[in-house]
Amino acid sequence: MSILDETHAPKLRSFVATANGHPDFPIQNLPIGIFSRGRAERRGGIAIGDAIFDIGLALQSDLFQGEAQEAAETAAASELNAFLGLGTSARIALRRRVSALLAADSSERPQVEACLHQSSDCAMHLPARIGDYTDFYVGIHHAMHVGQLFRPDNPLLPNYKHVPIGYHGRASSILASGTAIRRPNGQTKTPDAEAPTYGPSRRLDYELEIGVFVGPGNALGEPIAIGDAAEHIAGFCLLNDWSARDIQAWEYQPLGPFLAKNFASTISPWVVSPEALAPFRIAQTPREEGDPQPLPYLFDEQDQRQGAIDLELEVAVMTEGLSRKGLPPHRLALSNTRHMYWTVAQMITHHASGGCNLQPGDLLGSGTISGPDLAAAGSLLEATEGGKSPIRLASGEERLFLEDGDEVVFTARVRRDGYVTIGFGSCRGKVLPALHTLRS
Amino acid sequence: MSILDETHAPKLRSFVATANGHPDFPIQNLPIGIFSRGRAERRGGIAIGDAIFDIGLALQSDLFQGEAQEAAETAAASELNAFLGLGTSARIALRRRVSALLAADSSERPQVEACLHQSSDCAMHLPARIGDYTDFYVGIHHAMHVGQLFRPDNPLLPNYKHVPIGYHGRASSILASGTAIRRPNGQTKTPDAEAPTYGPSRRLDYELEIGVFVGPGNALGEPIAIGDAAEHIAGFCLLNDWSARDIQAWEYQPLGPFLAKNFASTISPWVVSPEALAPFRIAQTPREEGDPQPLPYLFDEQDQRQGAIDLELEVAVMTEGLSRKGLPPHRLALSNTRHMYWTVAQMITHHASGGCNLQPGDLLGSGTISGPDLAAAGSLLEATEGGKSPIRLASGEERLFLEDGDEVVFTARVRRDGYVTIGFGSCRGKVLPALHTLRS
Repeated sequence: MSILDETHAPKLRSFVATANGHPDFPIQNLPIGIFSRGRAERRGGIAIGDAIFDIGLALQSDLFQGEAQEAAETAAASELNAFLGLGTSARIALRRRVSALLAADSSERPQVEACLHQSSDCAMHLPARIGDYTDFYVGIHHAMHVGQLFRPDNPLLPNYKHVPIGYHGRASSILASGTAIRRPNGQTKTPDAEAPTYGPSRRLDYELEIGVFVGPGNALGEPIAIGDAAEHIAGFCLLNDWSARDIQAWEYQPLGPFLAKNFASTISPWVVSPEALAPFRIAQTPREEGDPQPLPYLFDEQDQRQGAIDLELEVAVMTEGLSRKGLPPHRLALSNTRHMYWTVAQMITHHASGGCNLQPGDLLGSGTISGPDLAAAGSLLEATEGGKSPIRLASGEERLFLEDGDEVVFTARVRRDGYVTIGFGSCRGKVLPALHTLRS
Repeated sequence: MSILDETHAPKLRSFVATANGHPDFPIQNLPIGIFSRGRAERRGGIAIGDAIFDIGLALQSDLFQGEAQEAAETAAASELNAFLGLGTSARIALRRRVSALLAADSSERPQVEACLHQSSDCAMHLPARIGDYTDFYVGIHHAMHVGQLFRPDNPLLPNYKHVPIGYHGRASSILASGTAIRRPNGQTKTPDAEAPTYGPSRRLDYELEIGVFVGPGNALGEPIAIGDAAEHIAGFCLLNDWSARDIQAWEYQPLGPFLAKNFASTISPWVVSPEALAPFRIAQTPREEGDPQPLPYLFDEQDQRQGAIDLELEVAVMTEGLSRKGLPPHRLALSNTRHMYWTVAQMITHHASGGCNLQPGDLLGSGTISGPDLAAAGSLLEATEGGKSPIRLASGEERLFLEDGDEVVFTARVRRDGYVTIGFGSCRGKVLPALHTLRS
C-alpha cells in the first residue's frame, strides 16, 4: 500500500486537454502499456486522455533522471516484463516524473508534447510476455451461483473459505483487447445423449475478471510472506476468461477446465498501477460473521483493512441486432471487486506458499466476480440461471449464451469522494463463427 | 512416422567407442539437448556414448551443408525452441548428417573429434524455454487405481474413454534432471480434523510420465488434423510430475490440482527424436473390446496401427539408508508407455481441437503411466495402496511416501529384436527438507 502523494491530488490537471475529465485516463491514472504506430516497433507508452506518451521518445529528449530514468529505460522496451520486475520504488519514481511532465504547469511542455501520439493512430498489444497464467476463483458469489446449479444442497465446497482456490490457465492464447475470438469446436455430451459429439460450442460465455501482473516475484522454493506480497503486485487489467460451458461440463472431471477455457482469454491493454488505485482501497467485505479466520500465513492486519479495491466492473454486449437498429450496447451486469473473498495479496502469497516461483509479467486472474444478485452476474451462466432464463435486448433479440457477431465489452472505474475517477479502458472481443476443419 | 533409414541400421557403429553398446546413447539414438561447459554459454549438443557432440563447434568447422546446416544453426542456440519448430524434414537432415559424421567410417573423424566433450565435464539444462506445459491423464491404469481409491464403485469417469483428459500445469517450475527439489509446505486437512493446517507435505510422491516437446504448432483458432499431428511432435523426454497428495486432496475441488503440483516438475535433459523411436512403434493396446471408437477427429488408421510406443519405464529410489549400507537403488516399478490409452497424436489433436495454439517448445506430459499391477505402479500413491501398504527396502527402511534425502530416478529404454536398444538417460531429483519461513 503506497502513501498518497501529489500525483493523486484531485486538483491536478494536465496540459493534455482530453485528460481532464477523461473517464479512464486523467493525469491521476497514468497506466502503462505497449503500443505501436504505423510500421514502427512495439514500445512502452503511458495513456493520458486521448493520447499516448511515448516513453522511448521522452528518453531521447533526456526528460528523465535517476531512478525514473532507469525505470523509463525498461518501460520503453517492446514488452514490460523487465519494468514490471523492478518493483514499487522504480514504478513510483516513473509515475511521479511523468505526472510532473504532463501536468498543466509542466516546465517541459514543448518537449513533452513532441512525445505524444493520438491513441486513435496507435495499436495496443499485450503489455508483457506472459510466462504463466493462473486463474483464481475468489468471486464468492460466482462460486455460490455455479455451485447452486450443480450442487443445490451444498453450493460452496468445504475448502472455499480456507484456500484461495486457483488453477493454471493457458498463456499462449491470451489476447489484447479488440482481437476477435473464434467460437471453439469441442466435445460435448448432453445428459440424455448416448455418446458425445464434436462440433461448435453452443454455450459460449464470458467471465468478468480482473487480471494482476506479477512484479519481482520469488525464487523457486522461497515463499512470499503476506506482509511482502504487495511488492509483487505490479498492476491490474480487465480479463475476459471466455468459457465454453458445454465443453467444460463434459471434460472437467477430474482435473478441471481445459479446452473449455484455453481457446482465448482477452485482457485490456493498459496496466493500471497499484499507486493509481491507492485511494480506492477498502477493507475486505465478503467475509461473514462465523467464517474461519485465514490461516496465519494468509493473515495480515493491513491487508485485512486495505487489501480490497472498490472497483466497479461493467459488462455490456453489442449485438448485430442492436447495431442494425442504431441502439447502444446492452448492459448485462454491474459488479465490483469488493466481492472478492480473498485479496490479491492473499492470492500471491498462497500461490508461492508451496515454493512455486512467480515471475515478472505472470498474470493472475481473479476468477469471475459476481455480486449477490442477477444484475451483478459476471457470466451468462449465472445471468440466465444456467441457460434457462433468456435476457431480452432492446432490439427484440434474446440471449442465453453468446451468438456469433456479439461483441462483449468490459469496462471499470473507481470512484471516491474527494478523488478523481479513473478507469481501465475497455476489454473487448467479438465472437467469430466456428471453423469446420476437423471431421466431426 | 518416419521411414526407417541407414541411421537405424543395427550394424551401424560409431568411432566414439563408448557409444557402441551404450545403454542410452548409441549412434542410433542421437538425442539433442542444451549443455554448458565451465563458464561457456549454453548451447546445443547431441549425446553420443559418454560424449557430447558440440553443434556450434561443428558449424565453425563447416561440417554441414544445405538443410542440415540450417537445422544445425538453430540447434546450436542457447535454447532449442527454433530447432523444435523446424519440423520433421530439417530434424531428419540433421540426424542423417550427424550419424554420418559420428560413424565408424566417418571421413571427417579428425574434425568431428575436435567437437566432442566428455559428458562428465558438462552440465545439462532445460532443452527449451517452455511456454506452456500441459499434463494429460492418458495412463488408464493410473486413472483406474486412483479412481478406485476415491470412488470404489465407479473408478473411471464416464468421459475417460471419449476425451483425452488434460489440464494446464506450471511452466516456470520445470527443472532439468539433477536439480534438488524442496518438499513443499501447504494447506492440508485430515478428514477428522476440524480445520486445515499449513506445513510440510507428508505425502510427497513422484509421477512417472513421458514428456513430449511440441514442434511447429498451430496458429490460434486453427486446429491440427489427426493425420497431421505427427509433424508437431518434436521429441520425447522423461517427466517426474512431483505431487503432494495431501495438498492435492484438500485443494483440488472443483478446479483441479494447483499447489500440489506446481512446486517442481523434473525432466530428463535429452530430447529423443521421433526418428530414433521409429522402430519401436506399436499398435495402441489398452483399448478393449466394447470401448467406444474415438470420435472421427481423433481417429486415424495409421495412428491406430503405429501411434503407441513400446518404451519401458523404470522408477528407482536411492535412500540415505541404502546409500549408507552401500546398497544399490531400489527399483519401485517397471512400466511401459504401451499403457497410454490415447496416443501422442491424439493428445496433440485434441489439445488444438478448440483452437488453442501450440507453440514450439511447449511441453505435454502423458500423465502417470502405470501398468495393471502394483509392480508397474507409476506413483507411490498406487504402489502403497493409498499410503497404507509400506514398501520395504533392503536397508530395512520402509516407505509410504518420499522422505527427505530420497533421490527418485527414472530411466527408460526401447528394445526390439533386430534393432539396437536406446534409452533416455535419467530423470532424477533429490528431496530437500521443507523450509519453514511462513507462519504456520
